[in-house]
Amino acid sequence: MIERAVILSTGDELTTGRVIDTNSAYIADKFFSVGLEVVAVLKVGDTKEPLLWALRQGTELGDLVIGTGGLGPTEDDLTSDVVAEFLGRELRLDESIAEALSQRFEARGLPWTPNNLKQARFPEGAEIVPNPLGTAPGFRLDLGGGKTLLWLSGVPREMEAMLKEYVLPWLTSEAKTKAAAWACTFKIYGLTESKLDAILKPVSLGAQAKLSFRAHYPDLSVSLTLRGGREAEERFTALKAQIKDLIGPYIYGEGEETLEEVVGNLLLKKGWSLALAESCTGGYISHRITRIAGSSAYFKGGAVAYSLESKTHIVGVKQATLKRHGVVSRETACEMAEGIKRLAGADVGVSTTGVAGPAGGSREIPVGTVWLGMAHGDQIEARLFRFAGDREQVILGASQAALYWLRAVLVQKQ
Amino acid sequence: MIERAVILSTGDELTTGRVIDTNSAYIADKFFSVGLEVVAVLKVGDTKEPLLWALRQGTELGDLVIGTGGLGPTEDDLTSDVVAEFLGRELRLDESIAEALSQRFEARGLPWTPNNLKQARFPEGAEIVPNPLGTAPGFRLDLGGGKTLLWLSGVPREMEAMLKEYVLPWLTSEAKTKAAAWACTFKIYGLTESKLDAILKPVSLGAQAKLSFRAHYPDLSVSLTLRGGREAEERFTALKAQIKDLIGPYIYGEGEETLEEVVGNLLLKKGWSLALAESCTGGYISHRITRIAGSSAYFKGGAVAYSLESKTHIVGVKQATLKRHGVVSRETACEMAEGIKRLAGADVGVSTTGVAGPAGGSREIPVGTVWLGMAHGDQIEARLFRFAGDREQVILGASQAALYWLRAVLVQKQ
Repeated sequence: MIERAVILSTGDELTTGRVIDTNSAYIADKFFSVGLEVVAVLKVGDTKEPLLWALRQGTELGDLVIGTGGLGPTEDDLTSDVVAEFLGRELRLDESIAEALSQRFEARGLPWTPNNLKQARFPEGAEIVPNPLGTAPGFRLDLGGGKTLLWLSGVPREMEAMLKEYVLPWLTSEAKTKAAAWACTFKIYGLTESKLDAILKPVSLGAQAKLSFRAHYPDLSVSLTLRGGREAEERFTALKAQIKDLIGPYIYGEGEETLEEVVGNLLLKKGWSLALAESCTGGYISHRITRIAGSSAYFKGGAVAYSLESKTHIVGVKQATLKRHGVVSRETACEMAEGIKRLAGADVGVSTTGVAGPAGGSREIPVGTVWLGMAHGDQIEARLFRFAGDREQVILGASQAALYWLRAVLVQKQ
Repeated sequence: MIERAVILSTGDELTTGRVIDTNSAYIADKFFSVGLEVVAVLKVGDTKEPLLWALRQGTELGDLVIGTGGLGPTEDDLTSDVVAEFLGRELRLDESIAEALSQRFEARGLPWTPNNLKQARFPEGAEIVPNPLGTAPGFRLDLGGGKTLLWLSGVPREMEAMLKEYVLPWLTSEAKTKAAAWACTFKIYGLTESKLDAILKPVSLGAQAKLSFRAHYPDLSVSLTLRGGREAEERFTALKAQIKDLIGPYIYGEGEETLEEVVGNLLLKKGWSLALAESCTGGYISHRITRIAGSSAYFKGGAVAYSLESKTHIVGVKQATLKRHGVVSRETACEMAEGIKRLAGADVGVSTTGVAGPAGGSREIPVGTVWLGMAHGDQIEARLFRFAGDREQVILGASQAALYWLRAVLVQKQ
């Protein structure tokens, strides 16, 4: 039975403060959701002695030790060597991994250097953990006495894929953990973290349940977790219903669904196409829409109308409108939304015009002021927002507000 | 002499993944700059046993142990109790802190509860570390044998203030640390991590110097670090020059400079304006350009020409070109670059058209195929790229290639 886990994060970039370790929080969150307790997180640099120390401590404290980083081809990637030394095992070349690696390099016309073979050497007895997004696979080692050592890539997206596709299925399929946990996540728009916390205070959670808030601007979500097996299902369902009762209007999605995915699915379902005219958001909404595979089915395209010329020449805003009402105005936002809708032949046009800062603000139009425009059918509307924070936060906040408004229009028109 | 430091971060929110620990990276960065080596970072929850374990390990591994968190007034704030137990010392009430606390509460009209006194109790022999931004002060304890234990608030801004105003002056004023460290970072384009490593093999680093690689696609950088004071400057300069000799053509920046910042500065310096016509990159290049404050000085805007209509109607690509050569072709890339340059009235136009996947590929034009176009003056050119990886990687890779090409054009035209 695996109950206690220890996370090892390795890399000089972590102990010199050059990079913030997000991997351990991601793993801890996922482990929590399958009922594992993380007793400690250890971070050490790419140096043999501290790595050996971390392996010693980790295997002493935990049933499961999971490490990240140091699997690459370079001199400072020590993981496999140090793990082999720690366990007193030999390193073995995995022929099929070596073959796959050299094919991958050949396919891309990259020069094959002998140190690439480093990534195909694993401690004896290791089961390979495939890396669907990179060259360096990880490994799992049974250490005896019910202890397991797992090692994944340190690149966050590779680590996440390996965790989701290998580690979590391995943990849950054979019921290796103490108890399953019931968990659900609600994605929230329109509340601050402290407001959300206050609204949910009346929920009587009891000993085994927990609410976790996650604020990663502009994203906000709350997760309900309840430790327990089948018998806990009824209580979980009741708690979930109580939460939905309290914050229903602020929930735009469940699970890991992003706002751009929610909007994309609604556009598909409705058979509507979208066009965007972005000024202050500078292409960020287009990027959020197009990062979703299959978005070409509903996204026509748009304009990043950053300068005055591009607002008139590309999107077709009238010179007179810009002169009379200003660039950051209801009228300009409306003409941008309508213009791009017509130009791209789309069903709905969305626009943004505002002051992202840090410069460019005035007393009447301070930094953070953003007009959003929305045109569909023969309806054209604009709304005024004021976002707090720095340039990045204004861009993020405006993109979230635009997508959330679009979602509301699509839901309403269903 | 203090040479080795261990950082302890405490709190259940860290071991359940609810919060990402940024404190340890902040402290590690500051320690690195005063020549301290961080040998390990330990994170544990608010539970006595793991805390005792962390204190044991920390004081064994480091000359200086610095902890954060658990100094507050609530039940789960265990730090002072556990530290006192670990050292076998009594807790003592500090009258002046208790007095200051109760005055602070009175001044704000907050109810005074006895558990607030918790924050005024410290292990015997502690020197108080003032907290200029919060109620909970920290402490410093001389453990004998040249070892020191420091504890600060876990609230990031309070921790930062305590570190800057007390810890760093304490460390440097009495020359407690060995020496400063020399460091520089080079940003790289056009090499894989393993190729970079192979090229830099001949550099004879010696004992106190180190190369660290960091690959965060599409970013790649290598950092040189050399421990030592003034006397090490000459060696550092020589090593830096040797590295530049070996990889000069692949270096596009130094320090934390991003490629979009490098490009932005070059555009400014040259007085050129930029316009973009993005298809497969979906607005991501525009976003990278516009996230830089002040980019409106050189960025005119552009189009996200995702559909056929938007390529013809917005950017002005000829129907005949699309029909004869296809959407993903040299000719379309050229017409997009030239079209957006003219339309936006910019000095240089850059375009992207390709297949980001996962669907949409064919035998002739597989997923990852991207044509980039560049138009400036009366020159128009297109180049073919093939990017590996998933949709996100193709978008990231194409955006990096486009910006890098633009940089090359700007450098060449200087």
